[in-house]
Amino acid sequence: MKVSLSALDTCESSFTPLVVIELAQDVKDETKEWLKNRIIAKKKDGGAQLLFRPLLNKYEKETLENQNLYLVGASNIRLLLGAEAVGLVKECNDNTMRAFTYGTRHNFKGFDDNNDDFLTMAECQFIIKHELENLRARDEKMIPGYPQAKLYPGKSLLRRLLTSGIVIQVFPLHDNEALKKLEDTWYTRFTFKFQPVDYDKYVIFASFNLIWSTVILEVWKRGCANMTYRWGTLAMKRQFEEPRPGFHGVLGINSVTGREEPLYSSYKRQLRIYLVSLPFVCLCLYFSLYVMMIYFDMEAWALALHEDSGSEWTSVLLYVPSIIYAVVIEIMNRLYRYAAEFLTSWENHRLESAYQNHLILKVLVFNFLNCFASLFYIAFVLMDMKLLRQSLATLLITSQILNQIVESLLPYWLQRKHHLRVKKKVQALKADIDATLYEQVVLEKEMGTYLGTFDDYLELFLQFGYVSLFSCVYPLAAAFAVLNNFTEVNSDALKMCRVFKRPFSEPSASIGVWQLAFETMSVISVVTNCALIGMSPQVNALFPESKADLILIVVAVEHALLAVKFILAFAIPDKPRHIQMKLARLEFESLEALKQQQMKLVAENLKDEPREESGKEKAS
Amino acid sequence: MKVSLSALDTCESSFTPLVVIELAQDVKDETKEWLKNRIIAKKKDGGAQLLFRPLLNKYEKETLENQNLYLVGASNIRLLLGAEAVGLVKECNDNTMRAFTYGTRHNFKGFDDNNDDFLTMAECQFIIKHELENLRARDEKMIPGYPQAKLYPGKSLLRRLLTSGIVIQVFPLHDNEALKKLEDTWYTRFTFKFQPVDYDKYVIFASFNLIWSTVILEVWKRGCANMTYRWGTLAMKRQFEEPRPGFHGVLGINSVTGREEPLYSSYKRQLRIYLVSLPFVCLCLYFSLYVMMIYFDMEAWALALHEDSGSEWTSVLLYVPSIIYAVVIEIMNRLYRYAAEFLTSWENHRLESAYQNHLILKVLVFNFLNCFASLFYIAFVLMDMKLLRQSLATLLITSQILNQIVESLLPYWLQRKHHLRVKKKVQALKADIDATLYEQVVLEKEMGTYLGTFDDYLELFLQFGYVSLFSCVYPLAAAFAVLNNFTEVNSDALKMCRVFKRPFSEPSASIGVWQLAFETMSVISVVTNCALIGMSPQVNALFPESKADLILIVVAVEHALLAVKFILAFAIPDKPRHIQMKLARLEFESLEALKQQQMKLVAENLKDEPREESGKEKAS
Repeated sequence: MKVSLSALDTCESSFTPLVVIELAQDVKDETKEWLKNRIIAKKKDGGAQLLFRPLLNKYEKETLENQNLYLVGASNIRLLLGAEAVGLVKECNDNTMRAFTYGTRHNFKGFDDNNDDFLTMAECQFIIKHELENLRARDEKMIPGYPQAKLYPGKSLLRRLLTSGIVIQVFPLHDNEALKKLEDTWYTRFTFKFQPVDYDKYVIFASFNLIWSTVILEVWKRGCANMTYRWGTLAMKRQFEEPRPGFHGVLGINSVTGREEPLYSSYKRQLRIYLVSLPFVCLCLYFSLYVMMIYFDMEAWALALHEDSGSEWTSVLLYVPSIIYAVVIEIMNRLYRYAAEFLTSWENHRLESAYQNHLILKVLVFNFLNCFASLFYIAFVLMDMKLLRQSLATLLITSQILNQIVESLLPYWLQRKHHLRVKKKVQALKADIDATLYEQVVLEKEMGTYLGTFDDYLELFLQFGYVSLFSCVYPLAAAFAVLNNFTEVNSDALKMCRVFKRPFSEPSASIGVWQLAFETMSVISVVTNCALIGMSPQVNALFPESKADLILIVVAVEHALLAVKFILAFAIPDKPRHIQMKLARLEFESLEALKQQQMKLVAENLKDEPREESGKEKAS
Repeated sequence: MKVSLSALDTCESSFTPLVVIELAQDVKDETKEWLKNRIIAKKKDGGAQLLFRPLLNKYEKETLENQNLYLVGASNIRLLLGAEAVGLVKECNDNTMRAFTYGTRHNFKGFDDNNDDFLTMAECQFIIKHELENLRARDEKMIPGYPQAKLYPGKSLLRRLLTSGIVIQVFPLHDNEALKKLEDTWYTRFTFKFQPVDYDKYVIFASFNLIWSTVILEVWKRGCANMTYRWGTLAMKRQFEEPRPGFHGVLGINSVTGREEPLYSSYKRQLRIYLVSLPFVCLCLYFSLYVMMIYFDMEAWALALHEDSGSEWTSVLLYVPSIIYAVVIEIMNRLYRYAAEFLTSWENHRLESAYQNHLILKVLVFNFLNCFASLFYIAFVLMDMKLLRQSLATLLITSQILNQIVESLLPYWLQRKHHLRVKKKVQALKADIDATLYEQVVLEKEMGTYLGTFDDYLELFLQFGYVSLFSCVYPLAAAFAVLNNFTEVNSDALKMCRVFKRPFSEPSASIGVWQLAFETMSVISVVTNCALIGMSPQVNALFPESKADLILIVVAVEHALLAVKFILAFAIPDKPRHIQMKLARLEFESLEALKQQQMKLVAENLKDEPREESGKEKAS
């Protein structure tokens, strides 16, 4: 074993680096040595059996600055076995998707023993992340050199290293060749052929908004099942989650996994949610409504000023309150977001998924009210359709422009400046074979971290609201949304490729709670649109003598539309037929295998039985 | 092997008979011998390895009448291994529910090698049914002696025997001791303590009907999860269903199971559904509305007659049209039911579950319209609350009385008469040790077959409609429903115990599509109740000047109530927390076991690897 370990130490450039680990500047040598040994140790000795080397053993000049960066990789066979361990699903030669196993590797499409491009780079990185996270404490009581960083058997080492600040970050490297290709198809040309997302179709159907939104959401589900089946994440078994980083409690035995880990009573958590978080959210909602009323006062004041003077100049002033309000809304949304994150993490949820759900719920309710309250007020209390149209336009366009700037362009600009600075520095170094890798690691180290899909979903959710809630009053909103999405798709692609560190791939079977949020929004939009149509002068003119009849008819139509919506949602199967069949086949095969095993057992047991039975009968 | 077979032949009274097979009178000896051999043959020879004997080898006098009855049983160890094969879930010593395996039998509560009451009688019968149904054709091309009864490899023998009319019926025997006990607790005393069903709670909450119905449906789901967990059917793996009996098509390969079986294109089925069944259902709905209009004509005629004469006698006449209408509705429901069964079986569904779903949908839509159309017409077109109350009462009470008579009392009376006749006959025979068993089998053979829970659910569904749709107009309906359910619970128990053959137990994790039907009904009832309240004179008096305001407020309240309903349904978890925990633990354990197995494999594979790798490096 020692031979192979030292061999790994010396042949440092023999592996493709996949993941970078950045340690803190002042980490002790003892800790570094221990971590390295744990990472490269054999599986059976509790290690991860991965390949590991410092980035910088050739650039001794610079040791002071970047000596804390380490590269992690793995041999090809190690990755294949890891793929089996994480339950990676790949396409077989018969076009079905199956969980990869090393024993049956030759049944899989594109597999070749001499060729190592069977797993994509993202999959390799996901496997390495999984192996690093599953590196668990054995009999260590603490991290060597850090007595305050306590360990207990089964605790994930990486989690503890991250929470103790010993490891600063772990990130995968970008694939520069692939990025070049994506650049062409994603964001330098204005084409959508190869983009997997097509939420821009609605400009064509904007008039059929109500039924259309149901159908598109159902079609999305089917498309989602289709895609996740192809990606192999639909049939992937869920892993049992560790407590999320930041979760604290008294050490005890988890009753599900039987592992020793911190426990926190759900009773205390409920108290925190209902006695602190809920009142806080209500207070914020009240504050947001208060700001809205101030906006309406400003609006009235601007109108009065304009009517007093009547000049060209003051007509521009009419737009000022809504622009200010739009900016204030954006600021409040962002502030509230921080508060919600703080509160939710204070609620001390054990699982990352529970944390996410509570956070999403908090943020959604507030953002919904914050963005749409003024529009509802204008539409159903003031009943001023002209003002509604104007506010809608201002809110939509301002928030879109702000988002684009804050989200992509500004970070990209900062990123470029940094990029140039690093380039210069590297050119000053003498040329070396590894210069490009060195440059890449140092550059990507400084990139921002992509914090998950939350913000992108939220943006689209609010946009969906602007477009669908009042679509019959202001169909132009759809056009603006399409325009925004044209540039958004490109700036998001730019963001993912050039601004942020590569994120680890996150297998997932659907868009989760967001599907529910979009569906709820589409139900609300049926109600608002019916109400708006009922309030329009043209429809009112049809019932000159009786307003009650008009309302009854509008309500009847609304109920019928809602019924149609639910029947449609029920009647359209969530998974396309061919995928249902393939999943059923997989399930059938695993049941058959189990049955075969049991049959064998039954046959074996029955063989021994007659002797036993007859023996019993003799005795009785 | 031959020794044990002949041993089984002779020790015929050494087993407890569990299931009875009735063959047709004229079955050839060759077929009987073949069937017997297949049932008692060893598992590894493709048999079921069960015990089997004719009922009548001791009563030669009567051979002409009952020589076609056979008893099936199984040895204790065979039943335990069968329990493992069907995936039976039992309680362990640590109070969790786990799939029973023979190897771990000593971990289960109440298990004792010398005691055979670990499995309940119903479980034993279920296992025997499963084994009989899984007796499959091997190389036989037909059933011996019946060239027209074709077989193909893998075809279930029992299904073919039943469809060819060779086996008349297969039924489990009642457990007379248990029935005696049930008699005391279920239907001779008017007590509800030990009844698992408690849908009568609503008399207390009738006023909170709207929210209550949501809560009770959610509580039902939780209760359901609780019970099915205890019964071990919640975690039971679903079996892949065979084509249902009566399904026909061209022999081909099933793409899911890979078995050879009849196939029928789903395209043809869709054509049959949309071009024949759908128009037929619409026609029936139209006919039902037509009958309703005739009823209203009769009602008007009776009212005119009463007003003309004004005597006591004609005031009774007022109730005649509704009573006639109620009877006609019951008759139409029953006729339509036959038509729906015929059509659905003509649609040629492959699976029993698909057949059931299509049948339930057809029957529900028709019954809903047939029973409630006249009430809707009275409430929202005629707006005659007095007539509504009267019709509701007549419909409800008539349908309840009719149901009780047709469902239980009449069959019970017929049953009793037959019972006495058989008793006399048996007493005429000379006394023998097996006389009670003989009597039991002959009696139960003639009992009716319980056709599933459909009718019982439908009855409760319609009752739920009568009670909840118009609860604010006629709260007394709830009282009648409670009264009915008091007697219903008893007559149903009587029916199950004394009128019908014992049904095989049918494991199921929930009440399935009925949950959806009840939920839909409770949504509709929110709408109708809000509308009825809005129409009441007291509420109308609050808004003397503006009807439009009143309608707007009613609609707003209705939307708020519906929103509360959906939020409640979303917020109340479908499974109680402790069951979620236990299920998570089971899943975790099976994942861990899988992981351990894979880890071992990884470790083994990696042991061989370094040599391979170093070899490669030398070569390169």
